[in-house]
Amino acid sequence: MAYDDQNPFAKILRGELPCFKLWEDEHTLSFMDIMPQSDGHALIIPKEPAQTIMALSEASAMACIRTTQRIARAVEKAMQCAGIQVVQLNGPIAGQTVFHAHFHVIPRYVQQPLAMHAAQMGDMQKIKGHAERIVAALS
Amino acid sequence: MAYDDQNPFAKILRGELPCFKLWEDEHTLSFMDIMPQSDGHALIIPKEPAQTIMALSEASAMACIRTTQRIARAVEKAMQCAGIQVVQLNGPIAGQTVFHAHFHVIPRYVQQPLAMHAAQMGDMQKIKGHAERIVAALS
Repeated sequence: MAYDDQNPFAKILRGELPCFKLWEDEHTLSFMDIMPQSDGHALIIPKEPAQTIMALSEASAMACIRTTQRIARAVEKAMQCAGIQVVQLNGPIAGQTVFHAHFHVIPRYVQQPLAMHAAQMGDMQKIKGHAERIVAALS
Repeated sequence: MAYDDQNPFAKILRGELPCFKLWEDEHTLSFMDIMPQSDGHALIIPKEPAQTIMALSEASAMACIRTTQRIARAVEKAMQCAGIQVVQLNGPIAGQTVFHAHFHVIPRYVQQPLAMHAAQMGDMQKIKGHAERIVAALS
């Protein structure tokens, strides 16, 4: 399947869709998942157009994990979560719903099961507040 | 919680426990998960002693994702799976059961739900066969 540049993350990269931005550098962008599985759920994407981690260049994969690590540390500090799941899904069968490669940083809290993946729109004011806390923890 | 060098992956790194090895380089080791969630389930670990991705050095995280990408491509080719989940769990609450940072490469197949994480020992002959196919696909 060829890369479709009309996917939502391609639109975010071009500024055609908004996002709650956490971090941007030469090769990556990080922003909040607006269908969060838990409070503070963040995404990291490469700027390179690639559908999966298998299709991504090594340089982009390495840039992504560097940003993922940075975001995970900031999320842990900002959200005071008890654990973090880093998840990267390739193919519809694996649960991928946006066909631009991406890494999830999903905070886990004691006695709080996760919401379904990509199932329900979150509360935008709440997500905005979490984004501000994570950005503050990044600096 | 301090890093405990008696964890099973530390023992594998020291050669005190066996593994079905897939790949080794200066910074990483990859081997089969012996409690697979699906056929071809592989693990990638840094040689650096660190419990989580947050505690890991940037250099080790980057080496891990490079090996993860390499293994994911080989698993896709060898196992002819329909998708791949890359999962990296930090903290017991997030499902981490071995306290040395690691990345899972979990193949997904059509109409095959995943087995529970770290729940049941797999068939060693079958896992050995999968390892041989993945190693062949790496070269």
